[in-house]
Amino acid sequence: MKVGTELEDLLAEIVGRIGDLAARGRVATYIPELANADIRQFGIAVAPVGGATVVAGDGDVHFSIQSISKVFTLALALDRIGSALWRRVGREPSGDPFNSIVQLEYERGVPRNPFINAGAIVVADVLLDDRTPNTALDEVLRLCQRLARDKSVTIDQKVAASEMQTGSRNRALANFMLAEGNLKGDVENVLRVYFEQCSISMTCRQLATAGRSLAACETQGSDSDPIITADRARRLCALMMTCGLYDASGEFAYRGGIPAKSGVGGGILAIVPGIAAIAAWSPGLDDKGNSLLALLAIEELIRHKRWSVFSP
Amino acid sequence: MKVGTELEDLLAEIVGRIGDLAARGRVATYIPELANADIRQFGIAVAPVGGATVVAGDGDVHFSIQSISKVFTLALALDRIGSALWRRVGREPSGDPFNSIVQLEYERGVPRNPFINAGAIVVADVLLDDRTPNTALDEVLRLCQRLARDKSVTIDQKVAASEMQTGSRNRALANFMLAEGNLKGDVENVLRVYFEQCSISMTCRQLATAGRSLAACETQGSDSDPIITADRARRLCALMMTCGLYDASGEFAYRGGIPAKSGVGGGILAIVPGIAAIAAWSPGLDDKGNSLLALLAIEELIRHKRWSVFSP
Amino acid sequence: MKVGTELEDLLAEIVGRIGDLAARGRVATYIPELANADIRQFGIAVAPVGGATVVAGDGDVHFSIQSISKVFTLALALDRIGSALWRRVGREPSGDPFNSIVQLEYERGVPRNPFINAGAIVVADVLLDDRTPNTALDEVLRLCQRLARDKSVTIDQKVAASEMQTGSRNRALANFMLAEGNLKGDVENVLRVYFEQCSISMTCRQLATAGRSLAACETQGSDSDPIITADRARRLCALMMTCGLYDASGEFAYRGGIPAKSGVGGGILAIVPGIAAIAAWSPGLDDKGNSLLALLAIEELIRHKRWSVFSP
Amino acid sequence: MKVGTELEDLLAEIVGRIGDLAARGRVATYIPELANADIRQFGIAVAPVGGATVVAGDGDVHFSIQSISKVFTLALALDRIGSALWRRVGREPSGDPFNSIVQLEYERGVPRNPFINAGAIVVADVLLDDRTPNTALDEVLRLCQRLARDKSVTIDQKVAASEMQTGSRNRALANFMLAEGNLKGDVENVLRVYFEQCSISMTCRQLATAGRSLAACETQGSDSDPIITADRARRLCALMMTCGLYDASGEFAYRGGIPAKSGVGGGILAIVPGIAAIAAWSPGLDDKGNSLLALLAIEELIRHKRWSVFSP
Repeated sequence: MKVGTELEDLLAEIVGRIGDLAARGRVATYIPELANADIRQFGIAVAPVGGATVVAGDGDVHFSIQSISKVFTLALALDRIGSALWRRVGREPSGDPFNSIVQLEYERGVPRNPFINAGAIVVADVLLDDRTPNTALDEVLRLCQRLARDKSVTIDQKVAASEMQTGSRNRALANFMLAEGNLKGDVENVLRVYFEQCSISMTCRQLATAGRSLAACETQGSDSDPIITADRARRLCALMMTCGLYDASGEFAYRGGIPAKSGVGGGILAIVPGIAAIAAWSPGLDDKGNSLLALLAIEELIRHKRWSVFSP
Repeated sequence: MKVGTELEDLLAEIVGRIGDLAARGRVATYIPELANADIRQFGIAVAPVGGATVVAGDGDVHFSIQSISKVFTLALALDRIGSALWRRVGREPSGDPFNSIVQLEYERGVPRNPFINAGAIVVADVLLDDRTPNTALDEVLRLCQRLARDKSVTIDQKVAASEMQTGSRNRALANFMLAEGNLKGDVENVLRVYFEQCSISMTCRQLATAGRSLAACETQGSDSDPIITADRARRLCALMMTCGLYDASGEFAYRGGIPAKSGVGGGILAIVPGIAAIAAWSPGLDDKGNSLLALLAIEELIRHKRWSVFSP
Repeated sequence: MKVGTELEDLLAEIVGRIGDLAARGRVATYIPELANADIRQFGIAVAPVGGATVVAGDGDVHFSIQSISKVFTLALALDRIGSALWRRVGREPSGDPFNSIVQLEYERGVPRNPFINAGAIVVADVLLDDRTPNTALDEVLRLCQRLARDKSVTIDQKVAASEMQTGSRNRALANFMLAEGNLKGDVENVLRVYFEQCSISMTCRQLATAGRSLAACETQGSDSDPIITADRARRLCALMMTCGLYDASGEFAYRGGIPAKSGVGGGILAIVPGIAAIAAWSPGLDDKGNSLLALLAIEELIRHKRWSVFSP
Repeated sequence: MKVGTELEDLLAEIVGRIGDLAARGRVATYIPELANADIRQFGIAVAPVGGATVVAGDGDVHFSIQSISKVFTLALALDRIGSALWRRVGREPSGDPFNSIVQLEYERGVPRNPFINAGAIVVADVLLDDRTPNTALDEVLRLCQRLARDKSVTIDQKVAASEMQTGSRNRALANFMLAEGNLKGDVENVLRVYFEQCSISMTCRQLATAGRSLAACETQGSDSDPIITADRARRLCALMMTCGLYDASGEFAYRGGIPAKSGVGGGILAIVPGIAAIAAWSPGLDDKGNSLLALLAIEELIRHKRWSVFSP
């Protein structure tokens, strides 16, 4: 199909041009397993609403989706307890780095939003409920597999073990919220859910395909999933827009104009409502913790396609 | 025209239903002149792209647009110095109240975004340049008149004088930025521009009409203005989305899904890109400083019309 | 001896007068075992340099010394690693509540001083070194017994167990410092040292006697102990003066003019250099977390005796 | 007299040894007039209680006492309104730099203590009352002259003018407190009192002599002044101890063990209660804003003399 071919050519061109850049940021080192990533890798995929997913570069290589998983666990938590979630976590941008504990103290253990680490730990606590970590994680994994239309999505246990060992800052956040009465489950069980969800391994192709359900809006059709209702897709996009790239969220909204969520594994999932989902990945991060090449690639693509929620 | 009639009926119905609510918030009292506003007043206007502006309730009553003026002065400052502005002010949500000085200290006098007071004072400083306050203000006023297609838009000097007398917190912000080297002009001149721009008096009809140029996107046609280019409209919308309602921005993005900017005079301007601009006004504010009835009315309207940038 | 008799009469008079006050503050409840304390209890003891300890009221009843233990563990840590300690913890007043985590984040895991919880946890980490918690705790206990001249000083294991279970905020602090590289030992072992040292149980008589070594200055004589050298006594007093009563330290320095250290068990140890040590105890706390009656009693005593380091 | 001679020799020896150090810190530059100071200058003076003031080095050269003036204005304000002052300013160490505005926001315009700039501005406001700035300043100047036993103490109008022009950060603090209702007088008048008091010019000899009234305690005799009562002297010393060297107060209390107050002009006034007052001066500052050589000289002197309030 012509559209597919055009998009293929465009993605190949972008990967070719950007993939050679010398400045590639730095691979995250605070989780030892992530430090092994190959900074030369770079992939992208676009999943058009109602069309087939198109891939370029290393778009079929698996990487650790890290914080991008927070979009999926949030959808599940909203499905579980609905708006009651918002009594335990806010919906405002934080203005602080993703792992800051300062805001938590000023606001008595209620994280500013579900995409900063503290907020995602509360979401993991909601998912855990009174189940075992494995049961809760199965549900997350099944959702990812279903949305990605690929049963091979799995949890990288080496990454999870690495996070569990070195995750003292997240352990501090969890204990702080426990002290403030905003954590119900056992700290180590909640953290196990959190660290393993972050260790889900996906390709750009899988991630873009999974994201298509967020882009599909009203006319979801074959992209529909009982967890990602139209209303919920809209709201997840709103949170991605205001809080998705941590303290670079405002700048990307300004320059890019579409919702996106990044992870320190180097992946970024961006949504063009009604049109497509984009997944890009390269392990080198900029100083805000977002993948440098993935961000560049997405910006190139949407500029070329004139995709923006503010000029439909 | 049928569309107009339908919209008229809808607005009248919303104003009728919401206008009778007992809980109306509280009128802002920190600027004495604003405290005189009549809390019973409530108006709304919608300016569809390519169509005539429709009004209901007190939609033709003048009110102080206050911080909504920051959208227009930002457009002018971007026209003056372009992206050089972003070296002096950030583009991130602040996570703090609109008049907080804490963030300024941590970030060495660079305000987090152009919609918090400190950021808008920097924008006023850019507009002032080496001109007199009156010359700078003339430019702001002419833009508002042009966009509103109404020469009667004017500055309420009683409100301006009231702000000038009681504005010690803004005076603190300005002096703090001067100390950090982020203010070029004379403090009192910069503050005069700032206080007078906030004292611009407009009706919902005028404000919605003025906002239409932000909604018109690529196909601006007769709504086009040299200051509000398509690119700039998109970016102003992005900032309104992430920072427009202070520390309720995230929540409105989540619930409403469209860009908006509020003022403590009780007005709110909201943009539905490609479709329409909405202006609503009622002087009673909620505890975040946004008009309670205006917010409700806009939410009712966009829910009914299914307007959201995340489900085009 | 006449001096002893005079002091006995004075203490009895103070206990009689203050002990009947209706306003007695509130017993700390965040450690369940402490909540059982009887708010009617009130004791005081004075240990003059070179004289016998004098007691009044419930001065022979055991109570949980809590944060007062930080003075003794600090002395041991200084003996262990000397001024190298000050690379891991500061010596400045914090201006924040005792369990604040905010300052820790701004200052990269280095607590402001050794008397806030985070600082005392670092001190416990130094004491633990590569030993077992029991070995480290034995050393602390032996010092307290030696200084108090009483082998019956012991750790209240019920209080310690209660703290261990409910200490999630301190667990947050410890994990946060671990994340910042300022904790060497296993978190749970360090916390065990910390919680058990806080659970040391002493009487006013024992505590005042133990404090005498801090008051004895140059002419320590029989009060000398290899851990509490003259230099170290002076410096511990300085830290008690600036940081001993958390965010009421400045006010007590102003009103009282002598070094003191309080604990949430309701005890306060105060030092009059060259003259005496004072220990007072009553479980009701004021809103800063210091014992209301103990503070009043000490202020009465030193006003009457004209004891102040600023008018020798 | 032998004592005098011994002290003279000691001071001469200290000035000789320390005065040649290569590392001398940096002269304050934010007040242009201060930037002209000669970094080679270095003086010291000691005023023993009941004895004659002894001087070494540049101990008779005038310098700008800057924040040391806050001790004298505080004494006057306490004389004016007594403990009512403490409803408008706290007595706790701040844990923040001297010109921080952050604490002011968190604590609603009530400065943490009278020695940080905001607190001293409140004190200046109390002194101003409904008088002219000149009348209030006359009172300050007369007190300094009287305590220094030297009518030649004066205000350096060039320094004052320089501060008035560049004092935007202090202007920010004053306006912020005005906004919070904690400033009664006209901002510019209050600031004039503040800037001129900081511009008082004294020599080490004058300053040490003036400080003797703080050291004289109960037996003030000929050093007595109606403003510096024994009670007040004790309390001023307490505040100097906990807050006198800004965020190096705790460290100096620990290392030095006596009350002191510094100024960015390079002067330090230290008090040894019952024994002597010390004034040292050299314009080069360390990174906390305290004179590097003056601090060293005072530490050498008190170590040699074994002067400390904690080992009388």
